[in-house]
Amino acid sequence: MTNRIRVGITGYGNLGRGVEAAIAQSPDMRLVGVFSRRDPAGVQLLDSEVPVYSIDRTEEFTDEIDVMILCGGSKSDLPEQGPYMAGLFNVVDSYDTHASIPEYYASVDQPARESGHVYLLSSGWDPGLFSINRLMGEAILPEGETYTFWGKGLSQGHSDAVRRVPGVKGGVQYTIPSETAIERVRSGQLPQLETRDKHVRECYVVLEEGADANAVRHAIVSMPAYFADYDTTVHFIDEATLKAEHGAMPHGGFVIRSGKTGQDNDQVMEFSLKLGSNPEFTASVLVAYARAVHRLARLGDIGAKTVFDVAPGLLSPKSPAQLRKELL
Amino acid sequence: MTNRIRVGITGYGNLGRGVEAAIAQSPDMRLVGVFSRRDPAGVQLLDSEVPVYSIDRTEEFTDEIDVMILCGGSKSDLPEQGPYMAGLFNVVDSYDTHASIPEYYASVDQPARESGHVYLLSSGWDPGLFSINRLMGEAILPEGETYTFWGKGLSQGHSDAVRRVPGVKGGVQYTIPSETAIERVRSGQLPQLETRDKHVRECYVVLEEGADANAVRHAIVSMPAYFADYDTTVHFIDEATLKAEHGAMPHGGFVIRSGKTGQDNDQVMEFSLKLGSNPEFTASVLVAYARAVHRLARLGDIGAKTVFDVAPGLLSPKSPAQLRKELL
Repeated sequence: MTNRIRVGITGYGNLGRGVEAAIAQSPDMRLVGVFSRRDPAGVQLLDSEVPVYSIDRTEEFTDEIDVMILCGGSKSDLPEQGPYMAGLFNVVDSYDTHASIPEYYASVDQPARESGHVYLLSSGWDPGLFSINRLMGEAILPEGETYTFWGKGLSQGHSDAVRRVPGVKGGVQYTIPSETAIERVRSGQLPQLETRDKHVRECYVVLEEGADANAVRHAIVSMPAYFADYDTTVHFIDEATLKAEHGAMPHGGFVIRSGKTGQDNDQVMEFSLKLGSNPEFTASVLVAYARAVHRLARLGDIGAKTVFDVAPGLLSPKSPAQLRKELL
Repeated sequence: MTNRIRVGITGYGNLGRGVEAAIAQSPDMRLVGVFSRRDPAGVQLLDSEVPVYSIDRTEEFTDEIDVMILCGGSKSDLPEQGPYMAGLFNVVDSYDTHASIPEYYASVDQPARESGHVYLLSSGWDPGLFSINRLMGEAILPEGETYTFWGKGLSQGHSDAVRRVPGVKGGVQYTIPSETAIERVRSGQLPQLETRDKHVRECYVVLEEGADANAVRHAIVSMPAYFADYDTTVHFIDEATLKAEHGAMPHGGFVIRSGKTGQDNDQVMEFSLKLGSNPEFTASVLVAYARAVHRLARLGDIGAKTVFDVAPGLLSPKSPAQLRKELL
């Protein structure tokens, strides 16, 4: 294919690696290069034929790249890189600090407009696919409630908290949606639920030699903010099991809209994800949106966009006529 | 609100009544009138203040109606009304004969373009929301399989078939997704499944006085095309139970995309509906898309559209900034 969409990746951690893998599954796209803050010689890609460049050299590639996918973190990488890249490229990112989205939107919108590029921020699954389902739920069923549940997923912050407990050698924490809460929501009862009512926490812990299991368990389940308000279970395992069974990065969750129409009829819409790898799935979403961004840019659109602004058809490599015939 | 979207309804059966109820839940919309083939004096609306007109008078209302929602059937009503209405109004319909969508699209696209209107065909949930999820599933997870399950839902055609069996006084048939098949799909096994593997059929039957229950059961479960290939269960009930418990029109189903990414990780996306009333839910979808059609028309867009062409944000009464702040 000669007219493949030319994509660049900035930042090569788990997410960047996932983007590289997702592009390899997309015959209409081609990875031009990876840009890293590390010494390029030390960055090992999945495909050794793709070049790695220093992030300082992105400006040289404005004519070679149709869409740049930013794979850095929301805390410090994206607030710095986003506004800069908006002046150079069409961009997709996964900015996920929900409360700061309006400011971040403004910070990339202006440079994107001035340089004539499209910048799609906050793609992925939450924000992203979950946001779309929250929006459609309330637009279609205006009288009702929306519930978002997360998990089963590995939580980095809570895993760190477990590992800081004296006597703990290693461990991980999973956030798990409460089955009881999900059933109440699915039944159309419209319960009022706090985050702590909707989730339970499960810890897998390796003890230091000679540590007191009961003391460790107590220290975890009573930890304020992290565990005290939750139904928390602690499992003790050995180090080999931790490595063998808890090295993946699963995640997922549900968005449920429960509403009523007309003659007091219950209507329930539900979207759920069960992800073997959180970063690889997020990356797959970013790549599909990169296709949409490329098309919007070719149609002459400019400025900041979110998933709310993108018609579903733009995500697919198929033509509109083919989509109507095969998938409608 | 002075600038409410002015909506008309053509056809007043279960779907038209559902649209009336959905507009009543939408403060940014106003129902201008209902157009019927029946004698207007005999058509009783939920809200007696809304006028009913003969369908022959629609042409008089081109200046009064922003969007016309067609609530007739796909077999004979819409193929006749659609191309005609496309010349007069912005339109939303629920055309659902999947195989004929490309032809039907062409038949409304030309008159809509010539008259400068937007015509959104095949809205609802399948085609409609299920189509969007099929599209997004394969765009995001290009290596995988998509599975659509329908039910639990009342099937009109199969209920009619049950009622034609000698000895049957009354009855209904529900199509129910097979739990075994759903579990296999959710597990990431990527099974090959025919429609008959994915669904079971359940019949609730009232016998004529003196009819032989075993003969009736055998006639039903062995009926070719309708039941012989399926796992079918027949329950015998009395007439009072049929009326009390089987008068609603529930439906629903699932779209599941099961795919693999990067390092052979299983990823599962699932969208499901559990509907207390199929026509009221379909109507709620049509009304949300009527809002989007009104906006597209105001932006100067024309011609035939499907749900694939509509950005999610257009469905919500909220502003783009409010959506980013509250729902992203």
